[in-house]
Amino acid sequence: MPIRVGIIGATGYVGGELIRLLARHPSVELVGLTGRDRRGDPVAAVHPHLATSDLTLDSELVADADAVFLALPHGTAATLVPDLLARGISVIDQGPDFRLRAAADYPRWYGFEHPHPELLGRAVYGLPELHRSELRAAATARLAGAPALVGSPGCYPTATLLALAPLARAGLIDDLVVDAKSGVSGAGREAKAEMLYAEVNESVRAYGVAGHRHTAEIEQELGGLGMTPMAVDFLPHLVPMTRGILAACHVRPSRPVAQDELDALYAEAYRDEPFVTVVGAAPATGHVLGSNHARVFVRAGERTGRVLAIGVIDNLVKGAAGQGVQALNLLFGLDETAGLDALPLAP
Amino acid sequence: MPIRVGIIGATGYVGGELIRLLARHPSVELVGLTGRDRRGDPVAAVHPHLATSDLTLDSELVADADAVFLALPHGTAATLVPDLLARGISVIDQGPDFRLRAAADYPRWYGFEHPHPELLGRAVYGLPELHRSELRAAATARLAGAPALVGSPGCYPTATLLALAPLARAGLIDDLVVDAKSGVSGAGREAKAEMLYAEVNESVRAYGVAGHRHTAEIEQELGGLGMTPMAVDFLPHLVPMTRGILAACHVRPSRPVAQDELDALYAEAYRDEPFVTVVGAAPATGHVLGSNHARVFVRAGERTGRVLAIGVIDNLVKGAAGQGVQALNLLFGLDETAGLDALPLAP
Amino acid sequence: MPIRVGIIGATGYVGGELIRLLARHPSVELVGLTGRDRRGDPVAAVHPHLATSDLTLDSELVADADAVFLALPHGTAATLVPDLLARGISVIDQGPDFRLRAAADYPRWYGFEHPHPELLGRAVYGLPELHRSELRAAATARLAGAPALVGSPGCYPTATLLALAPLARAGLIDDLVVDAKSGVSGAGREAKAEMLYAEVNESVRAYGVAGHRHTAEIEQELGGLGMTPMAVDFLPHLVPMTRGILAACHVRPSRPVAQDELDALYAEAYRDEPFVTVVGAAPATGHVLGSNHARVFVRAGERTGRVLAIGVIDNLVKGAAGQGVQALNLLFGLDETAGLDALPLAP
Amino acid sequence: MPIRVGIIGATGYVGGELIRLLARHPSVELVGLTGRDRRGDPVAAVHPHLATSDLTLDSELVADADAVFLALPHGTAATLVPDLLARGISVIDQGPDFRLRAAADYPRWYGFEHPHPELLGRAVYGLPELHRSELRAAATARLAGAPALVGSPGCYPTATLLALAPLARAGLIDDLVVDAKSGVSGAGREAKAEMLYAEVNESVRAYGVAGHRHTAEIEQELGGLGMTPMAVDFLPHLVPMTRGILAACHVRPSRPVAQDELDALYAEAYRDEPFVTVVGAAPATGHVLGSNHARVFVRAGERTGRVLAIGVIDNLVKGAAGQGVQALNLLFGLDETAGLDALPLAP
Repeated sequence: MPIRVGIIGATGYVGGELIRLLARHPSVELVGLTGRDRRGDPVAAVHPHLATSDLTLDSELVADADAVFLALPHGTAATLVPDLLARGISVIDQGPDFRLRAAADYPRWYGFEHPHPELLGRAVYGLPELHRSELRAAATARLAGAPALVGSPGCYPTATLLALAPLARAGLIDDLVVDAKSGVSGAGREAKAEMLYAEVNESVRAYGVAGHRHTAEIEQELGGLGMTPMAVDFLPHLVPMTRGILAACHVRPSRPVAQDELDALYAEAYRDEPFVTVVGAAPATGHVLGSNHARVFVRAGERTGRVLAIGVIDNLVKGAAGQGVQALNLLFGLDETAGLDALPLAP
Repeated sequence: MPIRVGIIGATGYVGGELIRLLARHPSVELVGLTGRDRRGDPVAAVHPHLATSDLTLDSELVADADAVFLALPHGTAATLVPDLLARGISVIDQGPDFRLRAAADYPRWYGFEHPHPELLGRAVYGLPELHRSELRAAATARLAGAPALVGSPGCYPTATLLALAPLARAGLIDDLVVDAKSGVSGAGREAKAEMLYAEVNESVRAYGVAGHRHTAEIEQELGGLGMTPMAVDFLPHLVPMTRGILAACHVRPSRPVAQDELDALYAEAYRDEPFVTVVGAAPATGHVLGSNHARVFVRAGERTGRVLAIGVIDNLVKGAAGQGVQALNLLFGLDETAGLDALPLAP
Repeated sequence: MPIRVGIIGATGYVGGELIRLLARHPSVELVGLTGRDRRGDPVAAVHPHLATSDLTLDSELVADADAVFLALPHGTAATLVPDLLARGISVIDQGPDFRLRAAADYPRWYGFEHPHPELLGRAVYGLPELHRSELRAAATARLAGAPALVGSPGCYPTATLLALAPLARAGLIDDLVVDAKSGVSGAGREAKAEMLYAEVNESVRAYGVAGHRHTAEIEQELGGLGMTPMAVDFLPHLVPMTRGILAACHVRPSRPVAQDELDALYAEAYRDEPFVTVVGAAPATGHVLGSNHARVFVRAGERTGRVLAIGVIDNLVKGAAGQGVQALNLLFGLDETAGLDALPLAP
Repeated sequence: MPIRVGIIGATGYVGGELIRLLARHPSVELVGLTGRDRRGDPVAAVHPHLATSDLTLDSELVADADAVFLALPHGTAATLVPDLLARGISVIDQGPDFRLRAAADYPRWYGFEHPHPELLGRAVYGLPELHRSELRAAATARLAGAPALVGSPGCYPTATLLALAPLARAGLIDDLVVDAKSGVSGAGREAKAEMLYAEVNESVRAYGVAGHRHTAEIEQELGGLGMTPMAVDFLPHLVPMTRGILAACHVRPSRPVAQDELDALYAEAYRDEPFVTVVGAAPATGHVLGSNHARVFVRAGERTGRVLAIGVIDNLVKGAAGQGVQALNLLFGLDETAGLDALPLAP
């Protein structure tokens, strides 16, 4: 019997990507899609690439869904979750409302008081490579009647944490600059003048120079892996492409470290991961386009002693919808790669 | 038991796309990949997006393949085919060597004498939407011991013929201008200065103004559908994108024709086609990116009486590798959509 | 003494381009810039590429300007012009309000009744290559006290008319399809979801399939050159680039015509034109980027008898602001190339 | 009397940009252009955007040039310079052969022994913002009969040094990571498969991870400004655009520093610079496209104490040809902005 899945917020880019993936998932039935102001519209009218779909946007979610994905502006998801959980529906929130453990981080980084801080401890940070056992525990609890709550990671943190996790676990990070580059789909589908083609094309720029919100997740999760608590310098850039994130992590190690040791550390960390591949040449975001794959690269700087760790992902798949599906698979006891086996598209 | 498939010419863009599709095909086993000068190299070294693959490029194709794809420069495939057929291997040629029925068209359009004109009558033009019964006949003959030979259509002809087939069959084409736009991946992976990013970016240009080779296929196939023989004006353009072809077909109809009649004609023609969708708004190439889908649009011009028919495809999928796989499926009695069910990628 | 020039509508792309050109014009002083909702803002805040400018956006235009450019939505300019003319200010309207001679064309193509049809006969269609003598007559009248009124041509008509003028004058156009491709800056700077980078990138699409407004200008001007009145099929496409228009004009000639005759016709037509160059190979829009130059190419089709004429321009320069400045130069008796001598930018 | 200028290596992107700028320079006459294998070709055949030019590529440089630009592969210029100087011709080398002061840096970073180390002390590093007085001294020496030799800076060092110079002079740099992003025109016009449009488009990647050659210039010049000698971590990225460089410089300051102090430092440093503008919001490369302008931004990190300094330029103008022309102007006593007054092109 298929898992009955709904999507709240199905009209944006993450929503569209969830439909694309779940419509081909071997164990999922899409039972409800909702999207702002589009009640009754066929999916094809909102997402022309899904013109072969016969799904329709409803105003109300089917009541007996097993799981619901939320792809909503921050602050909105938090208000919906208690009711969904109360109805026994597991929730995978693609926004930030359930990523942070400390309630105080919400006013600080997102500018709102979290309406349900009591749920933050229950939520799992949905990066399977770091929290697989917690996701499995949530799966067990789900079978016992407690619906699961997952805060699916941000796109930048995903690329950054995959690149840095082996170093953080080994206590090797003494100082850290993360300089990241992203395509523009992460900015969403709302009409904004600064995201017009003519504004973005043939130009690169930094943004969030006063402190990007994803810094909070990065610090929380690196701390959880054992990194000495520190304020991380995280600087994102917008580059003229649609999809893809590259995080270049410049690490001052806590002791001199040789390439051999790094190679062993990374090989060990990702040996059995279905979606993370350690590569020996600097990876490009184009190598993972349209897929749930990540590539990780690490290099000891001979002249300076600094370590460079690079992670690349597709921000809408491994950085959003695909990662959510990966969590769904774990929550429902499926093969972790179900519905996610597409290879990257190139050129 | 899986179909054992080889690829000769696996290092280019069409070769890479064949690997991407066939590696996930439920009924295919890749048993041999060859590529110029890359003997012994892992696929990952040639196609970094396929880094998770453990396939290797061999110099020799496994002798007992059931079918072989050829992704080679024109003129090369023609010399290899007789031996492959003699060994009982069915051949799907992604190049032009077996697309044209008249041997005289090869020196005229491609500048070489066809070395095996006796095979041209045996070859099937591999556009399933036009030649499904012939592909099925070839499948039957294959079971009886005669390996099949398919000339897989060119990218421009695919978009053009799908847009025009209903009009051609109805005898409605009196005069025709095809103005097409393509991404640059169709130009291949060879290093050419005019295909450098800095040359292609932020610019559009026409090419092949003296007569593009794909004109021959277009005229042959439209004639086969019943269009009065005529010289077709076909003008391709290079646009700054990687994938995608849009063919805008400007048709002077042989008699006045209303939108209703066109709508009925197209609905009827494509009602049961798994990969062709007739749409009511002008389609974009981005609506089919990375998929084997095509979109077709038709409109009667109220002021001028001309009919506009538009077809869009992904040139590397429906315009090349995907179409070849679709033919393979028919030749081997599989579901025509096997291995081709990925939805388009957007944005 | 410099010409005192104002710009109404200085915040959009055409407005910004006018500032860029006029700020470096040797005989112009910018005396007033106005733009919606930006009263008092420095130009640098609206146009970051003009950060070195010390100009400011005012709410009121300086009263004693010699000339004013209007870069406004259609229908708006028409209401402002009578007052400007009454104050003795010459007007160059970059919008369509004074391009068409027949008042009836406005409700038909633009959906509004022209508020001042009495001015349509006075206005000059500001394509110097076709209407230089009228622009010079307006210059003479200006000196005699009658301020000039110029309707600066649309971007698509500019590329199309330059490509076709020699054929139209020679009475050689018997049937015509214009298939045009444009970068997206022509769509303006307003935030529209369909013009987001992620929507435009890596995709090409036709639009205006029910009849683009620029058709009216094309038919009017070709008729003025002697073409038998006919309804023209004009189809524009949006391609993923910021600037540039290519118009491919497919002409069924009224009699067979050889390449030699075409070459002579075009050489003669453009011999003394400072901004139009006839080229022997198909031109790219990238060849004129950022400049007021146009390139024109013509070829007799040997197989089909059809003639292909191609024109390329930068839509924001020769297709808008540059063309307006060229008209200004003529109206004020300056060298026609003043302020417009920048060479194209490539790559 | 104009300055008589030649270009050796006029067929590449820097060569084309030099022609574009110098053809419109008010005090320059182009008297000789040479380029590999293109003897006798018109410039228009090599650079289609310069189709209005009547210049031709010669095999021999006119003997009585006043100055020559070299746009050649590294190692080639060094062999030509002694003869040019002996003939009394001043030389501006756009390559690296005369940028470094220590002869030992050439085998170390570029893999060749410098054939004329005796000239390295005579050469001026042609960044006017740092070495204006030396360029003026060279101008004086030139008048006294000693032709000048300028090593025009690399593109990455230009963006980096302009961003960091005020910090380096103030002794504020204690640790430094430079994370840079570049368009692909810096890779030149040679046909390379990895620079094909289809390879570069929709992808970002780091390169030179083992140590990019421009690191040598950066360390040399920051040292010259007073930075404590240190090995700098410099990591360049290739982004999908043609022109533009952004250098994000992550600085651990030697003492806590407030935004006010930084603002004063940068305002003072660049107050009178015609081409460097300090901006208050993170700049984009698109803000300087096609111009010799640079934008610099600095920000004190409140949480981490690190300082972020960003510089953006057009790599082919301020990062190459324009900077060379700026040096030429100084060497010949002209206004430093002569021929360089074009404003940036946007959108």
